[in-house]
Amino acid sequence: MILRSFAVLLVLAVSACGGSTPPTALAPATTPQPAAAADPLPSWNDGATKKAILDFVGRVTRAGGPDFVPAPERIATFDNDGTLWSEQPIYFQLAFAFDRVTALAPKHPEWKQQQPFKGLLEGDMKAVSARGEKGLLEVIAATHVGNTTDEFATIVSEWIATARHPKYKRPYTDLVYQPMLEVLTHLRANGFKTYVVSGGGVEFMRPWVERVYGIPPEQVVGSRAKVQYDARAGKPVLLRLAAIDLIDDKAGKPVGIHQVIGRRPIMAFGNSDGDFEMLEWTTSAPGPRLGLIVHHTDAAREWAYDRTSHIGQLARALDEAPRRGWILADMKQDWKVIYPFQK
Amino acid sequence: MILRSFAVLLVLAVSACGGSTPPTALAPATTPQPAAAADPLPSWNDGATKKAILDFVGRVTRAGGPDFVPAPERIATFDNDGTLWSEQPIYFQLAFAFDRVTALAPKHPEWKQQQPFKGLLEGDMKAVSARGEKGLLEVIAATHVGNTTDEFATIVSEWIATARHPKYKRPYTDLVYQPMLEVLTHLRANGFKTYVVSGGGVEFMRPWVERVYGIPPEQVVGSRAKVQYDARAGKPVLLRLAAIDLIDDKAGKPVGIHQVIGRRPIMAFGNSDGDFEMLEWTTSAPGPRLGLIVHHTDAAREWAYDRTSHIGQLARALDEAPRRGWILADMKQDWKVIYPFQK
Repeated sequence: MILRSFAVLLVLAVSACGGSTPPTALAPATTPQPAAAADPLPSWNDGATKKAILDFVGRVTRAGGPDFVPAPERIATFDNDGTLWSEQPIYFQLAFAFDRVTALAPKHPEWKQQQPFKGLLEGDMKAVSARGEKGLLEVIAATHVGNTTDEFATIVSEWIATARHPKYKRPYTDLVYQPMLEVLTHLRANGFKTYVVSGGGVEFMRPWVERVYGIPPEQVVGSRAKVQYDARAGKPVLLRLAAIDLIDDKAGKPVGIHQVIGRRPIMAFGNSDGDFEMLEWTTSAPGPRLGLIVHHTDAAREWAYDRTSHIGQLARALDEAPRRGWILADMKQDWKVIYPFQK
Repeated sequence: MILRSFAVLLVLAVSACGGSTPPTALAPATTPQPAAAADPLPSWNDGATKKAILDFVGRVTRAGGPDFVPAPERIATFDNDGTLWSEQPIYFQLAFAFDRVTALAPKHPEWKQQQPFKGLLEGDMKAVSARGEKGLLEVIAATHVGNTTDEFATIVSEWIATARHPKYKRPYTDLVYQPMLEVLTHLRANGFKTYVVSGGGVEFMRPWVERVYGIPPEQVVGSRAKVQYDARAGKPVLLRLAAIDLIDDKAGKPVGIHQVIGRRPIMAFGNSDGDFEMLEWTTSAPGPRLGLIVHHTDAAREWAYDRTSHIGQLARALDEAPRRGWILADMKQDWKVIYPFQK
């Protein structure tokens, strides 16, 4: 399967580039209430959602209690795009791919005449969209593979350090959700092992997740290219091939979780139908389980989208959340602040 | 790739079933010297090998020293068969597969007439060998796949609890190497994360590694079948398919390490040419690195084999160990005891 499924993921996203309506203005900075010293989730408003998270952690860590879970089994998985950081106006990894086209253009004079590269270089997203899936295959193949794993990690690190989000003019890693960072910290303080389980590329995330989320690279599950052990100038390398090894999205998420973790999580956090199977896999086993969906309801402070969005579409999981007991975290209602720089 | 490579691994092993000469008698139980209270490796004889391990751990943990490695980067990988537990007279997972044939035989009356099942049921290993790779494909397909991951874990756990090694008449998990258990413990006490990286099946190891090695299931890398997310009686399951997803042997080991860990180890332990690339990948990067080969030299207390063995063949790695700086741990010379029950 050569990149096809990954492109399917992305092609819808590109068509949103021209169509999505970004929030018209940045909301005034919220002033968080002074938190009680003991509040581990100070950026969450008091209410049912915050209480459900705190109660669950309390129950599974209470030694001798009926819902106690031994620490080694306290596995919590977090989707990334739209759950730990924003995903608008396009998936950040797609912005990376487009920036790579610009960076590589001097070596590819033919791109000036060749779609979708021409469109990307000229900022003509309609031309990019017109090329459709085939065009994105070409972009991914030209920007994501054919190098070594070490080279790719360096490229990602440099991009993460220098690229700026189009709206906020800040590094993309500034657009992580402060309330979710607090959940990560609270879980780890209670013996949980926290994992990222994302449809995004695992090698796109590993270089920065430790600094940004406190999650080490070995606790990241993501989509991945096949790699091949080889040698360059007498030194062993791992080459990134133009073939997909895992699409860690939808039914691929439980597969990725099983491959890398080998235990079923007891908590899962997502925001879209791409997380449906991860939430289902997590919450359908016996014992205490918690599934939570970050619902993007805040057009003023972030973005508001669900059923009809090309990015992070949330329909089936939204419909089934009540009967499955999945918690909906309403960004607008539940979160005092969105990003750390707004604290 | 349907099971072919895995069978290639195993077919050679089976041909050894009739041919290997087990040690004629169990050596008299060794009486370990009373160890100094501070000795973290009491089952290792004093000498260059033990010193090299202790010195390395001392160097990478000495804050401010030239070889200091931050704790999160202290990754150590261990092959399993022949490195952490024995692999004679046949790979233990192969014994499991053969026992599964016996267990499943009542449901398969046709096996009485059908090689290699007939041979296995009658103890006629020559007939099994005669069927070659094709026969082993059939055995693996009949015993390892087509069930759910939960079912397979239960089957493995029951086998591990009840099966007995043909020579020692003890559970296979008794045949782990006491000196290596001490290395695992010493490394973890010094901030290392210890991983199993084995050509054996990851789902064959995960159910018992935590109890036996103190290594959690998420720190096991191994060969694996493809799995598929599905539902049975309304409950989600992961089905084990008759297709290989990764052969975690030879050049597949750095690939598996990269997929699951995403960092390069700083220590690697192996015993055969199947570990060559893992040792090479580990020790060819800059900074302090240690590669160690367990050399099976003790025909009296364990087994003695290397260059010409069908199981755990060690030739190229033995030849190249000196110039690559890989340490040879000589079982006969370096180890006071082999198994925990001999302490």
